[in-house]
Amino acid sequence: MIERISILGTGLLGTSVGLALRAAGFRGSIEGWNRGAEGARLALEAHAIDAIAADPLQMVRESQVVLLAVPIYATLDFMEKLSGVLGSEHLVTDVGSTKAQITAAAGRLFNTPERAAFLPGHPMAGKERGGAALGDANLFRDRVWLFTDDASWQRSAQAAELIKGWREWVAAMGSKCIDIDPARHDELVAWVSHLPQFVSTAMSALLQDEVGDAPELKDVGGRALREMTRLGSSPYSMWRDIALTNTEAVEATLFALEQRLAYLRENLRTPELRDEFERANKFRRE
Amino acid sequence: MIERISILGTGLLGTSVGLALRAAGFRGSIEGWNRGAEGARLALEAHAIDAIAADPLQMVRESQVVLLAVPIYATLDFMEKLSGVLGSEHLVTDVGSTKAQITAAAGRLFNTPERAAFLPGHPMAGKERGGAALGDANLFRDRVWLFTDDASWQRSAQAAELIKGWREWVAAMGSKCIDIDPARHDELVAWVSHLPQFVSTAMSALLQDEVGDAPELKDVGGRALREMTRLGSSPYSMWRDIALTNTEAVEATLFALEQRLAYLRENLRTPELRDEFERANKFRRE
Repeated sequence: MIERISILGTGLLGTSVGLALRAAGFRGSIEGWNRGAEGARLALEAHAIDAIAADPLQMVRESQVVLLAVPIYATLDFMEKLSGVLGSEHLVTDVGSTKAQITAAAGRLFNTPERAAFLPGHPMAGKERGGAALGDANLFRDRVWLFTDDASWQRSAQAAELIKGWREWVAAMGSKCIDIDPARHDELVAWVSHLPQFVSTAMSALLQDEVGDAPELKDVGGRALREMTRLGSSPYSMWRDIALTNTEAVEATLFALEQRLAYLRENLRTPELRDEFERANKFRRE
Repeated sequence: MIERISILGTGLLGTSVGLALRAAGFRGSIEGWNRGAEGARLALEAHAIDAIAADPLQMVRESQVVLLAVPIYATLDFMEKLSGVLGSEHLVTDVGSTKAQITAAAGRLFNTPERAAFLPGHPMAGKERGGAALGDANLFRDRVWLFTDDASWQRSAQAAELIKGWREWVAAMGSKCIDIDPARHDELVAWVSHLPQFVSTAMSALLQDEVGDAPELKDVGGRALREMTRLGSSPYSMWRDIALTNTEAVEATLFALEQRLAYLRENLRTPELRDEFERANKFRRE
């Protein structure tokens, strides 16, 4: 039974996990730490956490489950530090958007019978802006929570129980747990999550340069424009680590889309355009 | 006072105009014609029109205002035919998505004191699918209705009154009337409407080819993917004439986005990525 959880990083995801755990009936203690004092204070006021820890490495020692909800490089840094202070009675898990590097580090630093367990996770949930103030108990409802666990890892019986318990809480927060290979994860999210983000950023930046000063613009652009540029609001800070840790896969999706746009551009007056619309219709129908 | 309106084409827009006129209190008669009998029947059953005309060229003679709500080339065809049967007591207007060719035809075929008036129009409203069944009395609420009128056109006093009256009904349907130069119109809508459509089509077609058969796909893709590919549902039939009548402007926007995506792809690991995110943030803030 999980009775004590630490959340490292009370931004949008960390705060939402705290709120969702409470909404799902978790009655144990939830302690939080955040790099900025303001985010920790907001999470506390929202009752996403019960207490703010001054020292994260002290806090985690007293928790059974440690949730890393910080950017990817900060997650990798914490993994180094936590592996030195936690033992087989602990489970560490995370919410990072790319999984190859984190899963490799999990195999190197955790997941032996003597060490703490690390379950790499990625809830497919978020908003175009971050921060504790946007924390939402329903953020994970009807979503998927991906895990890139490795069946070859040997863990203590206690750690295996904690993993089972955490998966149950993920399900209780409303998410469907899906296990996937880390390389396949990074390739798939490049297509369905990172490509949409970078296209929206590129389109928003382009429109800012081309028509950003047109007075008619805001009147004329409708739902299509709003939707296609909504993710343009996402801050660099949320995406820097993703661009740096999934570079090759993202490059491949962007290059493929560039070629596809060129093909469409060259065929605006030919029947190939119809075939392209029909392929797109098929994607949306299925 | 406008007492009799003909709607040629009772698809999504024609049907919605009929419904919106009624909702706004129009008490005159609205007659409709549609190429397919089913669309006309649905519009009649929805009370968007009072009667179905067998012969559009007969119907329009008895109307003060004729609304062309058919694809762009069909609009251009009707303009030729209508100019031969209507006189200075008639106003013809349209809802076509590109305005350069239609406005040029309006100057050539209409808009002298002896001829019927033609007011080129474009409501910035629609859905990703068409058809009378989706007709919506609120489609034009809080939207913009663009007009590419030409101040040099000389019209009868009667026609000028009908134009004033039609603009009032457009406002009553909830839209803000904005006058814009036709070339500027086509350039602006290429950026804010046609580019989003073609990008969504290209991205949907690409995803269909790349991950269309991945079983995890539908689970993993979230709101971002849904939004960025929603317009992928749009049928070729709604976009063919736009691609053919605004080709150069659309080509320019697609080429610019291709370059922008390549720039972003080449800078996934550099500080240029931050600048691009900040430009995108600026577009969304303004």
